[in-house]
Amino acid sequence: MLVEEREISQAVIRRLPRYYRYLGELLENGVERISSNDLSKRMKVTASQIRQDLNNFGGFGQQGYGYNVKYLYTEIGKILGLEEDHNIVIIGAGNLGQALANYAAFEKRGFILKGIFDVNPRLNGVSIRGVPIRMMDELKDFVQNNNVEIAVLTIPKEKAIEVANMLVENGVRAIWNFAHTDLNLPDHIIVENVHLSESLMRLSYNISRYNDEHSGKK
Amino acid sequence: MLVEEREISQAVIRRLPRYYRYLGELLENGVERISSNDLSKRMKVTASQIRQDLNNFGGFGQQGYGYNVKYLYTEIGKILGLEEDHNIVIIGAGNLGQALANYAAFEKRGFILKGIFDVNPRLNGVSIRGVPIRMMDELKDFVQNNNVEIAVLTIPKEKAIEVANMLVENGVRAIWNFAHTDLNLPDHIIVENVHLSESLMRLSYNISRYNDEHSGKK
Repeated sequence: MLVEEREISQAVIRRLPRYYRYLGELLENGVERISSNDLSKRMKVTASQIRQDLNNFGGFGQQGYGYNVKYLYTEIGKILGLEEDHNIVIIGAGNLGQALANYAAFEKRGFILKGIFDVNPRLNGVSIRGVPIRMMDELKDFVQNNNVEIAVLTIPKEKAIEVANMLVENGVRAIWNFAHTDLNLPDHIIVENVHLSESLMRLSYNISRYNDEHSGKK
Repeated sequence: MLVEEREISQAVIRRLPRYYRYLGELLENGVERISSNDLSKRMKVTASQIRQDLNNFGGFGQQGYGYNVKYLYTEIGKILGLEEDHNIVIIGAGNLGQALANYAAFEKRGFILKGIFDVNPRLNGVSIRGVPIRMMDELKDFVQNNNVEIAVLTIPKEKAIEVANMLVENGVRAIWNFAHTDLNLPDHIIVENVHLSESLMRLSYNISRYNDEHSGKK
């Protein structure tokens, strides 16, 4: 049985998707049980960290027997909300929007792609995995009528804030934001940002720092 | 003048790309100076945090005069290594690879796209922004002969580890990894992971938690 969710710290929560990914890989490879030591070697996290983290989910890691992979995977999936369905739309059917629309894991994780929207009339009616691309002027009605909970934004930053506000006014509760800007939405709206440019800058910084350290510039 | 880089904490470094993005937007809007209070309101970070962070870059925030936007932008860009050029290749010319190849900010930030590689023969010779897509069997020679420093991996996880190892053996020093796996490369190789599935799970978790809290399940 699960302990109550509120007892799990934010730090643990941030690590859960990685545990979930590793446990999923173990399942795919037919592994039924794994010790915290073996998981530790794979994940490059200390075994004591793993034991502490997974102890949050009750007593299913028995001393000497390791963890039941399938059970742990399922329980973490429940915590992450992956057993619930969420209707999503993708706004922006450029390369990135199409890449996300083709992302097969969406449905496995309970994300039901209901619509794709773009401003480009040449894309009107083109289907991706059976979902037709619609024009932006249909978006508002569509969101109101299809119980859309999550919107994925892959549009230029100039348009992103305006579109995000419209979505929220019409009932969207969460934004997966790939636009290169912060959206400044009301506090009760959940925003998960993927700022690729910032990720690239961290890479750039680490290369520069490495170069400096190894050229004596340090 | 810059203080020495080693005095800047990792926590500050992680925040720098966001400062850089906001300062860039201010520059685009013709703003020449900004006070820490105004920047604080825009960025939703406390003014004292901003003053502390930016004090790391020496004394160019004068009390009562605010920050010189252009100077601060330039200095942070230098710290982030954005004034140096890096040759990159993209491995995987699917939607995500093409989205990244079309990412115009690459070159502005010193990332020079030298090649794009895929296994799909139908893509052979197709050009993206003037860069032809090549086949994977040319990759090894290409990397050796073109001083490639960074590889962007947008290929399935089954292939990612093998390709990453080959790249590193042939001189690549950093990987921007979009494959849904950890690469476990030698410590001196810089890896910046973008695990989109984990980002989506965090979004899912936050929606579930919000639903629980507001349905009394908590």
